Parts: sequence; structure tokens; C-alpha cells
Amino acid sequence: MDFILKYSNLIIIAGGLAALVYGLLLSWWILKLPAGDEKMRQIASAIQEGATAYLTKQYRVVALVAVLLAIGISLTLGVTSAIGFLIGAFFSALAGFIGMNVAVRANVRCAEAAKSGLSEAFGVAYKGGAVTGFLVVGLALLAVIGFYDVTHNLSALVTLGFGGSLISVFARLGGGIYTKGADVGADLVGKVEAKIPEDDPRNPAVIADNVGDNVGDDAGMAADIFETYVVTAIAALLLGQILSQGSSNFVGYPLTLLAVSIFASIIGSLFVRLTGKNIMGALYKGLIITVVLAGLAFYFVTQAMMGQNTLVNTTNMFLSTLVGLLVTGGMVLITEYYTGTQYAPVQHIANASRTGSATNIIAGLANSMKATFAPIILISAAILFSFALNGIYGIALAVVAMLSLAGIVVAIDAFGPITDNAGGIAEMAGLPQKVRDNTDPLDAVGNTTKAVTKGYAIASAGLAALVLFSAYVQEFAKLGTSLVFKIDDPLVVVGLFIGGALPYLFGALAMEAVGKAGAAVVEEVRRQFREIKGIMEGKGKPDYASAVSIVTGTAQKEMLIPALIPVTIPLLVGFILGPVALGGVLMGTIITGLFVAISMTTGGAAWDNAKKYIEAGNHGGKGSDTHAASVTGDTVGDPYKDTAGPAINPMIKVANIVALLIVPFLH
Amino acid sequence: MDFILKYSNLIIIAGGLAALVYGLLLSWWILKLPAGDEKMRQIASAIQEGATAYLTKQYRVVALVAVLLAIGISLTLGVTSAIGFLIGAFFSALAGFIGMNVAVRANVRCAEAAKSGLSEAFGVAYKGGAVTGFLVVGLALLAVIGFYDVTHNLSALVTLGFGGSLISVFARLGGGIYTKGADVGADLVGKVEAKIPEDDPRNPAVIADNVGDNVGDDAGMAADIFETYVVTAIAALLLGQILSQGSSNFVGYPLTLLAVSIFASIIGSLFVRLTGKNIMGALYKGLIITVVLAGLAFYFVTQAMMGQNTLVNTTNMFLSTLVGLLVTGGMVLITEYYTGTQYAPVQHIANASRTGSATNIIAGLANSMKATFAPIILISAAILFSFALNGIYGIALAVVAMLSLAGIVVAIDAFGPITDNAGGIAEMAGLPQKVRDNTDPLDAVGNTTKAVTKGYAIASAGLAALVLFSAYVQEFAKLGTSLVFKIDDPLVVVGLFIGGALPYLFGALAMEAVGKAGAAVVEEVRRQFREIKGIMEGKGKPDYASAVSIVTGTAQKEMLIPALIPVTIPLLVGFILGPVALGGVLMGTIITGLFVAISMTTGGAAWDNAKKYIEAGNHGGKGSDTHAASVTGDTVGDPYKDTAGPAINPMIKVANIVALLIVPFLH
Repeated sequence: MDFILKYSNLIIIAGGLAALVYGLLLSWWILKLPAGDEKMRQIASAIQEGATAYLTKQYRVVALVAVLLAIGISLTLGVTSAIGFLIGAFFSALAGFIGMNVAVRANVRCAEAAKSGLSEAFGVAYKGGAVTGFLVVGLALLAVIGFYDVTHNLSALVTLGFGGSLISVFARLGGGIYTKGADVGADLVGKVEAKIPEDDPRNPAVIADNVGDNVGDDAGMAADIFETYVVTAIAALLLGQILSQGSSNFVGYPLTLLAVSIFASIIGSLFVRLTGKNIMGALYKGLIITVVLAGLAFYFVTQAMMGQNTLVNTTNMFLSTLVGLLVTGGMVLITEYYTGTQYAPVQHIANASRTGSATNIIAGLANSMKATFAPIILISAAILFSFALNGIYGIALAVVAMLSLAGIVVAIDAFGPITDNAGGIAEMAGLPQKVRDNTDPLDAVGNTTKAVTKGYAIASAGLAALVLFSAYVQEFAKLGTSLVFKIDDPLVVVGLFIGGALPYLFGALAMEAVGKAGAAVVEEVRRQFREIKGIMEGKGKPDYASAVSIVTGTAQKEMLIPALIPVTIPLLVGFILGPVALGGVLMGTIITGLFVAISMTTGGAAWDNAKKYIEAGNHGGKGSDTHAASVTGDTVGDPYKDTAGPAINPMIKVANIVALLIVPFLH
Repeated sequence: MDFILKYSNLIIIAGGLAALVYGLLLSWWILKLPAGDEKMRQIASAIQEGATAYLTKQYRVVALVAVLLAIGISLTLGVTSAIGFLIGAFFSALAGFIGMNVAVRANVRCAEAAKSGLSEAFGVAYKGGAVTGFLVVGLALLAVIGFYDVTHNLSALVTLGFGGSLISVFARLGGGIYTKGADVGADLVGKVEAKIPEDDPRNPAVIADNVGDNVGDDAGMAADIFETYVVTAIAALLLGQILSQGSSNFVGYPLTLLAVSIFASIIGSLFVRLTGKNIMGALYKGLIITVVLAGLAFYFVTQAMMGQNTLVNTTNMFLSTLVGLLVTGGMVLITEYYTGTQYAPVQHIANASRTGSATNIIAGLANSMKATFAPIILISAAILFSFALNGIYGIALAVVAMLSLAGIVVAIDAFGPITDNAGGIAEMAGLPQKVRDNTDPLDAVGNTTKAVTKGYAIASAGLAALVLFSAYVQEFAKLGTSLVFKIDDPLVVVGLFIGGALPYLFGALAMEAVGKAGAAVVEEVRRQFREIKGIMEGKGKPDYASAVSIVTGTAQKEMLIPALIPVTIPLLVGFILGPVALGGVLMGTIITGLFVAISMTTGGAAWDNAKKYIEAGNHGGKGSDTHAASVTGDTVGDPYKDTAGPAINPMIKVANIVALLIVPFLH
């Protein structure tokens, strides 16, 4: 196994390239599939245009912020750091851009394939999602190793992570506000006011709604995972360098773990194939194979790269990586329990809907709060075990192992919006019912996998943030200042309180933004109904582009203030109250952030599926009062699970990275 | 001013006795007022019976738990501690019992007085509430000083606090589940299903609903404030003793502050008189006079008792007490802003109700989260200032000063349920509209003052818990073990996470309990409508007592598990993971507890008032779709603001006291 040690740098680069090549092969395969009839292509191209218009505007806003920050960084931290920052931002944006562009082309091909059957549609959707998944990990790994190989500058690598994180906050927030503003707005004015079904082409907001699935659930999520991946890798490198005092294996080791896991993910991905009706089973099969292969590979990598170091217990290192894989599995099971229609929590919410909207909301809120307990215990156990095995570096290894699965996990998630879109296109193009019968079950499974991925993203984000926090502490130690963060020190307490407030404030602003974007859609659609004659009779053509452009504008405007919270508050606390209070802020943000994010994403998905459970014919089914009550919870859950909740992940990390960056000035 | 120092023990006892005497005088004044006609008296006695039946059952359950715990305590901590525990539990229960018994007699007299005019009704309601307020502080202060004078045993005093806290958790939870179960159930089956107005005598749950106001908002709140008062005093004594290494003034000083503030509160209370229509103004006048007088008295007490100690900066001590008074004022203003109908947040929720229940809920949830920011900054500033002035003892003094206002603050709060009941009695007894015209505005103001008191209770609970936590740390130091709680220690991190989970789990269970109690009411009312002929035509008489007994049973059953969470989890963590992790648990509970409690109580009140704002004729007024949407938020807000949110206060402190009690075993 000497070759692993000898060629680790090559293995890392090969892993990144393999992910890119696999992703591009899948895109090529998808793009040569038939794209349906004229009408389908028209609709799809409207969605494509909307999505591109959105991303173009988003990137323009973000580029402005990025350039300003890059100037600031180059003046304070140097040019290399500024370049790192721009690379991180650019690659993060690129991953979202390519992934989304494939997704908006896969949707119509998925609808076309659904004419042939369920497994054909599944194949297209899964491969479409896999493009995003593998591009994300490939670009992330190559960005880190490439930049490190060229500069060997770890602090500039931190700014690369900062670039990725910042894009990610914007993408998650902007995309989240867009997608749910369009969704809530389209529903309120379509289903509730005009009494037309979802995805009805007469609704002027219908294209905006379909665009939303792509910019929020695809591009936004891609940027989020890109960021967690990069930041985790960097945090592991940073800790490795500090703890090993120079031995390069501590740097190469975590990256090699990421690389071999990419190969495992590609193999696992090849096994995802739907033969019967068990969609979830087909997805999990790929995941389980990946986990087993990755676990095996981790064993050999650990032996080869750490075996010669007599100070290191390789068994413990290997076990730390297994902890990460186990946490992934545990989060999947827990999230499925709290969001699956076959389990008590969702059925309880459905049952509570029988007495109206209020009891549906009360049951859902209680469920969302309760759903935080098991994940917190799991995360706590992971911290204790991995720390006992290898100290703080053990925690870092566990997160690296967790994140190493990102390629296949994202693939499982990103197939959801493609099937959702495919269903929408089928509806709008008036395709036979059979097509929807094939896309609907895929969509329903997509809802659960989306929730599962969010649980995975949050658990890993929390652990990654802990590693960043300890890097913050270590950085001071490296500079000769041994700071003590005691929870009975009032500065730390105040820091914990202020940090704890960040997710609350951020989440509140994100939810309000969705409300504003939704209201803007409602007004625009009402205007079109009023001014464009014959829309409801199917004679007048709604102005889809105008609705898209209005939600885009609102989303861009509303994302700025909340996105700057995790940058400005750590700066203020750091320079006014000092580094000890700032340490409290970081930990406070991680604590409440975990609770707010888990309760929102899991709670939101449970509301969604309670509605689906009723629609499946329980408690009176579609059209009953119970169903109407469950729609309230579903709508409330939208900004919960798709805007505020997931945006908290990158927010936590931005706060931690900003703190890490200003260490030299606080010292 | 030498007499203050010389007779401080007498002053303290005199303060406690003055509060009792004033409270009893007020009760005597109220009881000799006319209690209305035959029908009114009948209704009032049904409410009295229900309330007594509830409390009897509650105290029976709690007594069982208390006796078991007392046995456990006497075996582990000694007989004196067990006696202290029972005294704390008994006095807490007594305060709630007497206060509630006066309230259920003041209600009908308030309705009768409302025949004469607004200011007459106000006078009865305020005095009725003041009985509870002054009995609470009188009993609390006498319990502490009496027990200390007799035993001079500080650790047994801690178990006295534990007794009070435990009763308080049960009272808050049981009362909260009862009151909101009855409320939600009565509304769902009355207003929504049978389309009959609130407080309609045909609704079999109407008495249960009126009983709820008393057992939740009066007895529950009394136990809560009793507990915070006692625990704050004890924590200040404990810290004083540890820090002063024996000088007795550090013990007498905080209690004297509490005593002189009682005199100030009685004087302030005499100024509460309604001349025009400005109800809030009349209440605030009494509060402001109290604050000014208390501030002056604090100055002299500080000079007299601390002036001879050359190690102490008396100006700083005095300033610490002022910080407490300022925090009270700040919390009042902030809560009023977030819950008052005249400000943007409530109007924003009302506005969002125009597009339905879902947007009402989204706006309300966002508001509830946002409403945590200003209080957290205020509390943080108070911590930093009072700590800078006098170290941790400065924080203790600030909380003591805050809590010293409890008499008048509770009076302002407890007048609410009396007017609510008076309105109900007027409705059920068919009194002329004029009576309701006089009770309704009082009720509306009562809603805001209830929210304000809760903000005050939570801020003081958070600070008191911090003081308890530092007593926990100091106790170890006293025993010769210097524990270090560093937030980069994984045990502390895991403790913070687990502690953070407590309010979430506890809040979730409390909300679910309300759902269950509400559902039980709905079924019972449906059964009565079905089985008792002629209820709806006003011919058959509903079985009020049966509804009362069903909610009572459900509330008692549902309160047990959540109430034991803050006892069992600290024990488990302490004995399994050790005292350092337990320290993390305590701080974690304080952090998320503050956010969950503030967001719930403020958010719930804002939903309530958004409905009231619409009912005042805005956005289409009563009966419009917008109003219907606002009722959803109001119903969701009920368990938020009256069950889960307020019960988190005592929960945080139970966790901290349990930890303090087991220090000798963890050492």
C-alpha cells in the first residue's frame, strides 16, 4: 500500500478529476436524450430562461459584494488571500451554475422518459441530480488541492473557504427566498383565490414556481454542500498542520480520504437502478454500497498514510472516520422517522389537521421542536467518541468522512427538483395522466430525500463549525496567546447569548423575506388576471417572464441584509468586546443554529408529508376540510424547510470563518 | 441610618408581614363587595368549584411527588434539607391557593362593579390581582428569612428553593395545559363547529375555560414568581456568603433590598387609580412610583449596610441595583413594542392575515423569533455592566432589584384573568352590554400586561439562573475542586448541546399536551351535544363539571413527564458524564431557554393582539376572512404564550438547582 502514501497528491487530484469526468459524462448522456415535443420544449425553455435570468442577476449582486470584500481582504490579509477568496467564490458559483443548467435540461427529458415508464424517468432524474453532486465534490476537492499545491498558504486557503461560504449564504438565501416566494405566492393566488390546480399554465406565476425548484433546491443546495465540503477539508488541514507541527501527512490524509470516497461514490452510483417500485430502496442501495466501499478504503488509506507514524494510533483514526459514516446513517434514519408518512410523527400532524389549521400548526411546531432531540444526542455521542479516539482531530476526521459522501448524497437530493419540474412540464404541456403517474411518486420520494439531505447537511455543518471554532482557539495559541473561554466568564456568556441570537434574527428575516416575495407575486398575478384578457379561459397568454423578474428582484433585495449578519456581528463583537466574547458568539451560534435549523427543516418536511398523507386518501383525502387545514402547515413549512432552515448552515460557518480570518487583528 | 444596619433582620420580617397584611386587607375589602344577583353567583360558584377541584387534584399529585422527593432528600442531604424542601413547596402552593381563591371571588364582584362604570370595575380587578402579588412576595420573603434565622443552614435553604421551583413547574405546566386545553377545546367546538360566541352558556366547556384563566394565569403565575423570588434571594445569599467569607451583611443586604421594595410597592400600589380611560397609564403610574421609591430606598440601604465595609464600593453596589430596575423598564418597553396593537409588528401580522392562515402564521413565527433580539442585547448589557461594577455579585444584586418589584408587577398581571372572568360571567348571566363594554377594554389591556410580565419573568429567570450557575461553580471551589468549564472542552460542548435540547423537548411536550387536552374537551362537548337534549335551544343544561373534570385529569397526566425532565436529565448527565458536562447542560438550558421562552410568550401575545387589532375594525373586522385567518394565529399562540413559554422559566431554574444540590455527590 506504499503507493497510497507516495502518490497521495496524485490520488487526490485523480479523485477530483474522476468526479468531474463522471459528472460531464452523465450530462452528455442526458443532453442527447429526446427533449419532447414542441410545447414541452417551449415550457422547458421558459424555465431555463427564468433560471438563467435569476442566476445572472444573483451573480451580479454577489460579484459586487465579492469584489468589495476581495479588495478589503487584499488590503488586510494580502493578495494571495484575496485570490483564494475569489477562487472559492467562483468555484462555488460554477458548481451551482453547471448543476442547475443540467437540471433545467434534465427536467423535460425526464418528462419525456416518463412516457415510457417509471424506471426510465427515474434514471434520467437520478443522473441529472448526480451531475450536480459529482461536480460539487470534484470542483471542491480540486479547488482545495490545487490552491494548496500552488501556494502552500493555509491562511489563504481559509479565505478560499470564506469565498465559498459567502456565495453559499447568498445562494441559499436568495434561492430560498425566490423558490418559496414563488411557491407561496403561486399557491395563494392560484389554488386559494382562483381555484386552479397546481402547475396550471393559466397561472402567471407557474414558470416562476418551477424556476424556483431549480434555483433553490439545486443551485442553492449545491453551493451549500460545496461550502461545507471545502470548509471541512480546510478545517481538517488547519488542525492537522497545527497538531502535527509540520508533518505533511496530516494535510494529505484527510484529502485522500475525500478522494477515495469519490471513487466509492461513483461505484455506488452505478448501482442505483430502479427495477421494481421501491424508489427509496434503489437510492439507498447506492448509498449503502458507497458507505461500505468508503469504509474499506478508509482503512487502507489510514494504514498507508499514518502507519509509519509511531505516535499515531491508526485504529483510532480509522474508527474516527467510521464515526462520521455512522452519523450519516443515523441522521438518515432519524430524519426519515420524523418526516416519513409511514411513521407516528407525520400521522399525528395529519390527525391533528382534523380539527383545523390551528391544531395542525400546533402539532407541527411541537413535532419540529421534538425532532431536534435525537439528532443532538447523536451529534453529542459522535463528538464524545471521536474526541476520545483522537482529540479534536478525531472530530475533524469524522466530519471529513461524513462529507466524503457528499457526491452521492447530493445526487439523491438533486433528483427531487428534476422530477418536480418534470411533473410541472407534463401538467402544463397537457401530457397524458400516465406521465404524472410516473413523476408523482418520484416527487414524493424526492421530498423525503430532500429532508434527509438537509439533516445530513446540518449535522455536518454543526460538526464542521466546531472544528472551525477549535481552529480559532488554536490560531491564538499558535500566535502565543492562550485564550481561555470559560462559560462562567461574563464575556463568554454574553458572547453565547449574542451568538445564540444570530440564527433567530437571521431566520426571522429570511421568513419575512419569503412573505414579501410571496406578496409581490400575489399582486403581480392579480394584476395580470385583471389586465390581460382571457387568461382564465385559456385564450390570453400570461406574462410568465414578468412574474419571474419580480420574484428575482425581491429575492435579491431581501437577501442582502440577512446575509451580512454573520459577517458584521462577529466583526463588531470581536473588535468591541474582544476575542473571548467572540469565541462565545461562535459557540452560541452553533448551539441555537443546530436547533433552529433542524427544527425548521425536519418540521417543514413533516408538514409537507402530512398533507401528502392526507392526499393519499386518509382523513377524507383531497378536498376535505382536513386537507385544507394541512395545506396551511405545508405552506408554513415552505419557508421553514427551504429558506430559513437550510440557510442557517452556511451562516454558522461564515461567522466562524470570519472570526478565524480576523484572529491576527484581535491578537 | 444606623437603624437600617442594626435592625435589618426586623426590617426584612416587617417587609414580609407588611405585604401579607396589605394583601389580606385587600381581600377583606373585596369580599365585602356585593357579589351580584343569583344567576351571577351561581356561575361564579361553578367557576370557584372548578378551580378548587383542579387545585385539589393538582396538589394531591404534586404532594405525592413532593413526599417521595422529601424522603429522598432526607436520606441524602439530611432532615433539615427535607424540611426546607417541604416548606418551599408548601408556601409556593399556599401563595397560589390563596391568590386564586380571592381571584375567583373578585371576578363576579368585578362584573357587578362594571355595572357602575369602568373605573369601579378596574378598582376591583386591580385590588384582586394585588392580593396575589403581595401574598407571593410576603410569603416568599418570610419563608426565606424565617428558615434562615432558625437554621442558619444555607444548603437547606437551597432545597427550600427547590421545593418552590418544583411546585412552580407543576403549577405552570399543569395550569398552562389546563387553561389552554380548555380554551382551545372550547373555541374549536364552540366558535368553529357550533358557531356560538365565546363564553356562551350553551357551551359545556365554558366554565372549564373560565376556570382555566384562574388556575393558569393566576395560580400558575403566582407559583412561578414565588419561585423566582425565593431562588433569586437564595442565590444572592449563597454568593454573598461565599464571596464575603462570613460577613453577615452580604446575607442581610439583598433581603433588606427586597423588604424596602415591598414598602415602595405598597405605596406605588396606592397610586393605581383609574380616572379617565387610560388603563395602561394608571397601571404604569403605580409601577413608576414604585421604581423611583425603590431606587431611593436602595441608595440608603446600600450606604447603611455596606458603607462601613472599606472593601466595598457602595456606589457600584447601588448602581448594580439600578441596572436591575432599568432592565425591568427595558423589558416592559420592548415587550410592549412587540405585542402592542399600535406598533408595527402586530400590525404586520394583521396585514399578513389578509392572505390567509398560512401567511398569518409565517409572519407571527418570524415576529416571535425577531422579538428575542432586543431582550437578549438588553440582558447582555445588564450582565456586562453589573459584572463590571461588582463581579458576579453585581449580577445577583441586579436580579434581586428586578425581583423586588414582583409585588406590583404581579398585581398588574393578575388583574387580567379577573377581568377576563368578569366578562365571561357578564356574558353567561346575560348582563347588559354596558357591563361588557367596561370589562372588554380591561381584558385587552390585561393581555398586554400579561405579556409584559412574562417578559419580566423570563429576563429575571435567565439572570437568576446565571447566578445559580455561578453558585454551582463556586460550590465546587468551596469544596476545594476548581473546575474549569471551557467551551472548547468536548464535555462542555456536549453539555451545552444536551442542555440546549431541554427547552425544546420540554416545550414540545407541553404543546402536545395542550393538543391532547383540547381534543379531550372537543370530544366531551360533542358527546354532551349529542346526549343531552336541547342544549343548543337553551332548554337542556350542559354538564359543566364533567368538562372541568376531564381537562383536570388530562392536565395532571400530561404534566408529569415534562416536569421531570429538568430533574432527571441533570442527574443523568451529572452522574454519567460528570460535573463539567453538567455545567455545560446548565448553561445550554439557559441559552436556548431564553430564546424559546421569549419567542413563545412575545410571539403568542402578538398573534392574540393581531386578532384584537382586526376585531377593532381593521382589514374588514370581525367575521371577515382576514379575521378568520387571525384566529388561527391566536389559537396557535395560546399554548405558546400560556403553556410552554412561561413553564420554561421554572424549568431552567429546577435544572440549575438540582445541579447545585448534587454538588456534594459529584465532588
